[in-house]
Amino acid sequence: MRKLYLILGEAGLELVPRELWSHRAVRRYAEKRGKRPGEVLLDISYHYSAMRGLKDWRKRGRPDIVHVCLLEALESPLNKEGLLEVYVHTYDGKVVRVDPEVRVPRHYLRFVGLMEQLLAVGRVPPRGERALMEVESVSLKELVGRLSPSTVLLLEEGGERLKLTELSELLVSEERPALVVGAFQAGQFSEKVRALADRSISIYGGVLSSWVVVSRILAALEMRLGIV
Amino acid sequence: MRKLYLILGEAGLELVPRELWSHRAVRRYAEKRGKRPGEVLLDISYHYSAMRGLKDWRKRGRPDIVHVCLLEALESPLNKEGLLEVYVHTYDGKVVRVDPEVRVPRHYLRFVGLMEQLLAVGRVPPRGERALMEVESVSLKELVGRLSPSTVLLLEEGGERLKLTELSELLVSEERPALVVGAFQAGQFSEKVRALADRSISIYGGVLSSWVVVSRILAALEMRLGIV
Repeated sequence: MRKLYLILGEAGLELVPRELWSHRAVRRYAEKRGKRPGEVLLDISYHYSAMRGLKDWRKRGRPDIVHVCLLEALESPLNKEGLLEVYVHTYDGKVVRVDPEVRVPRHYLRFVGLMEQLLAVGRVPPRGERALMEVESVSLKELVGRLSPSTVLLLEEGGERLKLTELSELLVSEERPALVVGAFQAGQFSEKVRALADRSISIYGGVLSSWVVVSRILAALEMRLGIV
Repeated sequence: MRKLYLILGEAGLELVPRELWSHRAVRRYAEKRGKRPGEVLLDISYHYSAMRGLKDWRKRGRPDIVHVCLLEALESPLNKEGLLEVYVHTYDGKVVRVDPEVRVPRHYLRFVGLMEQLLAVGRVPPRGERALMEVESVSLKELVGRLSPSTVLLLEEGGERLKLTELSELLVSEERPALVVGAFQAGQFSEKVRALADRSISIYGGVLSSWVVVSRILAALEMRLGIV
């Protein structure tokens, strides 16, 4: 394996969509933060009442899940060894490229501020030669086409059950495998995402949080490669 | 191995100490949250200016680290299989027992609210037969004496380097091993904590975040036990 592509799929990471700008809870929250409604992250912990009418609302407004997944992935030994490339594919169809050397803010509110800047401006830092995070205007399908991974594995509860040793064996036998892990709270991958996968895999008999899936697979790979 | 005790050691989790109650940044923060200064968590992201004069300030005010570690530990397959018991030992010498079935709030601000209630009242929920989290008035030494683990392993950067397979082998050969992982940002374990350990171990050549240490060891154990 030369590199692992980790894609956080259909992540609940987006600015408040226009249809909710005039909602009372949203307006009050934005005002308190000194921003306009369209400049703040949708967050179900604050915008529950506003979100109840939104399409697929159970999959959306979960920057906290993306946060913990990024903390796990970017602080991993695999990333420190230069073998990982992380992308966030959002529910609303954006792709964020994350530089392996980015230091994700550990504190949630700092992370939220960074994500708001990223989604509003398209990159962080806003200027400078090297973007640490960048919104790319491609679909997940186009991203996969461009990365052209040697295989695309989707992790989901209902997938074919593999032991972690089997999965890590499979991954190291591939030159540049891509893993898609859902970064949403409830529900399934859309058919569009599922259609991109070569295989759908499950690593445990019960439901697992996204960050646990990420850390388990990275750990197994690091062990298999002799890094830890 | 019948059970693993995971102790988050010298965690930066405490209410704002009395000496900072009158500091401007603290007063303003508490007011904004509708609480008294002694009722809010010390958090370096909000109280940096106030904390600079505090003893060991670099180890303190990091509830965010405890949060991610608890999310990793309590959502782990090992915990779901009933093989894990988690304790948080705080910088200021408290011990929090965490029920294996507690559902840690994923959202940071909800977690902060819960911890404030826990540290003020001593347990959550405040009433009822079964405490999901409970502050026990024992020192770490007393806790270790009471649990009487078959061995106590301290995880730290400068420890004896073990591969994860070696460490998991060692752990499963013990009946009830205890792991102490530091849940602070910078600095070393105090001598008091170090004195309780049978061995000091390191799993990687570089610095690792606390939650990565937790997830790596749990993953290795889960694999060794055939859980994942």
